[in-house]
Amino acid sequence: MSDQTQLIPGNSLITKTPEEGRALAVKMARLIIKITQPDAEIREKLRPNYANDAAMLIAIGQTVAAEFNTIAKANDYWK
Amino acid sequence: MSDQTQLIPGNSLITKTPEEGRALAVKMARLIIKITQPDAEIREKLRPNYANDAAMLIAIGQTVAAEFNTIAKANDYWK
Amino acid sequence: MSDQTQLIPGNSLITKTPEEGRALAVKMARLIIKITQPDAEIREKLRPNYANDAAMLIAIGQTVAAEFNTIAKANDYWK
Amino acid sequence: MSDQTQLIPGNSLITKTPEEGRALAVKMARLIIKITQPDAEIREKLRPNYANDAAMLIAIGQTVAAEFNTIAKANDYWK
Amino acid sequence: MSDQTQLIPGNSLITKTPEEGRALAVKMARLIIKITQPDAEIREKLRPNYANDAAMLIAIGQTVAAEFNTIAKANDYWK
Amino acid sequence: MSDQTQLIPGNSLITKTPEEGRALAVKMARLIIKITQPDAEIREKLRPNYANDAAMLIAIGQTVAAEFNTIAKANDYWK
Repeated sequence: MSDQTQLIPGNSLITKTPEEGRALAVKMARLIIKITQPDAEIREKLRPNYANDAAMLIAIGQTVAAEFNTIAKANDYWK
Repeated sequence: MSDQTQLIPGNSLITKTPEEGRALAVKMARLIIKITQPDAEIREKLRPNYANDAAMLIAIGQTVAAEFNTIAKANDYWK
Repeated sequence: MSDQTQLIPGNSLITKTPEEGRALAVKMARLIIKITQPDAEIREKLRPNYANDAAMLIAIGQTVAAEFNTIAKANDYWK
Repeated sequence: MSDQTQLIPGNSLITKTPEEGRALAVKMARLIIKITQPDAEIREKLRPNYANDAAMLIAIGQTVAAEFNTIAKANDYWK
Repeated sequence: MSDQTQLIPGNSLITKTPEEGRALAVKMARLIIKITQPDAEIREKLRPNYANDAAMLIAIGQTVAAEFNTIAKANDYWK
Repeated sequence: MSDQTQLIPGNSLITKTPEEGRALAVKMARLIIKITQPDAEIREKLRPNYANDAAMLIAIGQTVAAEFNTIAKANDYWK
């Protein structure tokens, strides 16, 4: 990831497969957390909070679903 | 599910029926939880938390609704 | 509902009227809760939790709105 | 509202104006609460809970926004 | 705002610019709070609750984003 | 940002790249918080609340995802 693309790896929503599109959705969701809390040490401390909390795991799923909705449409659903 | 497709079974959003599309939405939602919390033992411990909590059951429903919105569109609503 | 369709009654998103589409949205939302918590007894115990809690009633409304968005589009808004 | 339309007044998403479409979104959101908690007395008791709680007022706004998104599209945005 | 338009100022989703569309999204979100809690005094009391609470500020942002999604589409994204 | 554009920098949803579109989504989300809580001092005080809270970081991600959905569509997904 270059300096120019801190928010979207590769600076593109187009992927070869649905699987890659889904992985991009996960990355894009994580990069928003990264720019909101740029301190890596604090992020590491927070990680167990959501990885061990059912409500937060579900909320992460909602975020990824929303990102993927956009990416899937950008790729015309890989049809 | 092969190594190549950890996030979307079959690496495709296309399904034969609405029922299969809905099942895919459920699976995709669960697979995000799986990659966020890869430890199966911890996931097993967390499971009762959301299966016995009305608020979390509703939140899971919202996630599946969002995933299904994308899948239904990909399949042109099986019309 | 046959064994083949545990998630979408009739295995179709197409309905005759908006009212029927709305009822389908409600059913689809409930069926996700059912497969996440398959134990009918526990579901019965949880029911008062959300039927008597304003925040949960609102959250159920958000789920139904999301399901209905998909169903309405599938039916070209019954125009 | 007849017996046939407990969820969507008039059994149609089509309205003359954006204002009427918005009012329909509010009504549809309320009718979901009504079928989830059919006891009018309990609903009356719950009402102050959300009318006096900032977080719930915001959550109601999110529900109405989602319903209105569907209705506005059904009406081609009243263009 | 006339009696006829309590929910959508001007009774239209069409605006001249994105900025005006965004302002309309904010107003529409606020007007839903107003009809849910019509007592101005109570609304004034609740205001500090959400203006000083990070979680609520974020939730308001989610509502505005949803309203704006509809308005932007109605205006064909002001292209 | 001029007085005329307090909510959308540049008064346009069109950007050159996905990365710039994503940055716009982040800015638009922040500007809603700014007009809801115009006091910069209070905003500064609230900032640690959400930057150090896993649940709020996720909620911010959901807001940005929603804004980006609109922006990406406005730009025809930069295809």
